Amino acid sequence: MRGRGRDVPGLVKQARDGDPRAVARLISLVEEGYTDVAAALVGHPGSAHVIGLTGSPGVGKSTVTNELIRAFRTAGRRVGVLAVDPSSPFTGGAILGDRVRMQDHATDAGVYIRSMSSRGHLGGLAAATPQAVRVLEGAGCDVVLVETVGVGQAEVEVASLADTTIVLLAPGMGDAIQAVKAGILEIADVFVVNKADRDGADATYRDIQGMLNLAPPASSRKTPDVPEWRPQVVRAVANRGEGIDKLVAAVEKHRAWLIGTGELARRREARAAAEIEAIALGRLRDRLGSVRDGTALPKLAARVAAGELDAFNAANDLLGGLRT
Amino acid sequence: MRGRGRDVPGLVKQARDGDPRAVARLISLVEEGYTDVAAALVGHPGSAHVIGLTGSPGVGKSTVTNELIRAFRTAGRRVGVLAVDPSSPFTGGAILGDRVRMQDHATDAGVYIRSMSSRGHLGGLAAATPQAVRVLEGAGCDVVLVETVGVGQAEVEVASLADTTIVLLAPGMGDAIQAVKAGILEIADVFVVNKADRDGADATYRDIQGMLNLAPPASSRKTPDVPEWRPQVVRAVANRGEGIDKLVAAVEKHRAWLIGTGELARRREARAAAEIEAIALGRLRDRLGSVRDGTALPKLAARVAAGELDAFNAANDLLGGLRT
Repeated sequence: MRGRGRDVPGLVKQARDGDPRAVARLISLVEEGYTDVAAALVGHPGSAHVIGLTGSPGVGKSTVTNELIRAFRTAGRRVGVLAVDPSSPFTGGAILGDRVRMQDHATDAGVYIRSMSSRGHLGGLAAATPQAVRVLEGAGCDVVLVETVGVGQAEVEVASLADTTIVLLAPGMGDAIQAVKAGILEIADVFVVNKADRDGADATYRDIQGMLNLAPPASSRKTPDVPEWRPQVVRAVANRGEGIDKLVAAVEKHRAWLIGTGELARRREARAAAEIEAIALGRLRDRLGSVRDGTALPKLAARVAAGELDAFNAANDLLGGLRT
Repeated sequence: MRGRGRDVPGLVKQARDGDPRAVARLISLVEEGYTDVAAALVGHPGSAHVIGLTGSPGVGKSTVTNELIRAFRTAGRRVGVLAVDPSSPFTGGAILGDRVRMQDHATDAGVYIRSMSSRGHLGGLAAATPQAVRVLEGAGCDVVLVETVGVGQAEVEVASLADTTIVLLAPGMGDAIQAVKAGILEIADVFVVNKADRDGADATYRDIQGMLNLAPPASSRKTPDVPEWRPQVVRAVANRGEGIDKLVAAVEKHRAWLIGTGELARRREARAAAEIEAIALGRLRDRLGSVRDGTALPKLAARVAAGELDAFNAANDLLGGLRT
């Protein structure tokens, strides 16, 4: 889909000049499925550090994000934030309206904050979010924070999008071992034990350290001949601003490791490959849905549900009707 | 992939005769990607009630599953259990080995319990789990429990697999409003507030009821002219067996609603459609990966990562090399 009648290259130029409205407009176009924004950004790749931030609802993601924005701004860096977390104050969290601290930064020209809705998009967040990251990079952000939620798939998606992935835990939200069992160990570059003033925080900290001692971390990312990254574990009480300096230091250390080892380029290429594949598969999915004017799949599904046909032969039949 | 040298129709016959080793063998074949198991089950669709059970790590899924097995067995029903939860005692949970109560049923010939590993499968759990459900149905199970974990994607996948989806909550695991914000409201047919003897349980119960009053439930499933299902909310203390009778009653009530409204058939057809589409897309993904002997995607990804090409045009290029 092309942004017809819209001067996309002009918007890109304005965004690069620091116009927040142009940035907002470009991200909206990306969300609406316009693909020519990506093309217009070619040649302006930017060099932002893309930081993913994830954790279960209630661990304090919004507060930590807010404090990270403050820290990076104090260091003079331009910050973009994409909140793809349905529990974020910018999206579903508006239900309560009790966590609008990030709005503190709304009037700071060095901060772009943007919620990404997880519903109703062509191609969904998986397609729109990397493009939105590129818009923010193209607009000169030095840091792009991508905040999301969840145990499992959502975290894996953050990890595939980010250079550095921060996983937040809090005591009493399910202990560290549960987190490890849910697969978090393998995607985190930095752990934050937030609400570290609460009972159980020391146990959570020790459990994570113990698990890191036991399990080979980030095995899925290991590249031969690259010195291994041991995930850092940081204690924080984000609502008092405590521990944020250590978190920033851990994140910077990870970035230095990424650059020093060449891992940054490898991750970005892997990310681009996943993105290209997802777009291609999305297009193939659309074509599958339109096989025989869209009647093929429902008819096959009815036969599979009735036990008259198996799903694999049904898939073969569907693919047989596909033109690419 | 075909189970060459294996007598798959013979195994299906043995499974239908109640041989647990044949059931185990068939599920293993399904996990290993053999597609002729599905074909051999055609004509033996079974009529099990497929019940999904999900919730964050630590809410007590294993205990509730164990109690449900007990209740259904007491009623004389044959029960299959698929644990696709990485925190399940049958998979990753074995790290601790502290929750092996379900093993109580291991010697009961009316219960098949099987863990599904979430890693290393051709096509993954998304492909293998529906086939494993079919094996259990074909083997004469009256109830198939599918236990999984997570906030978000995993739950949506359970909902797409199950006739009836149970979502477990517990006080202090992130409150009900957080659960709602994470999108759980829309997939649950029955909520269980487990650990209902703990502080905060009443608040969790009230919050869920309040949210159900506010929000139109299960909107994504609503079919015109079908009376709406209002999700039931049940209190339980599963480790003392309390509330399980009410949970079973709520689940049975939901099944009666599914059958009475014709919604069961609609859901099963939608499920089959999703499964066929997933298999077809998996095959297309394999073909994409082999475009130009597998060199196309890495080359395109390197150009996208370098900012020389955008992902959409890269996807077009990749699709251009595809033969279907």
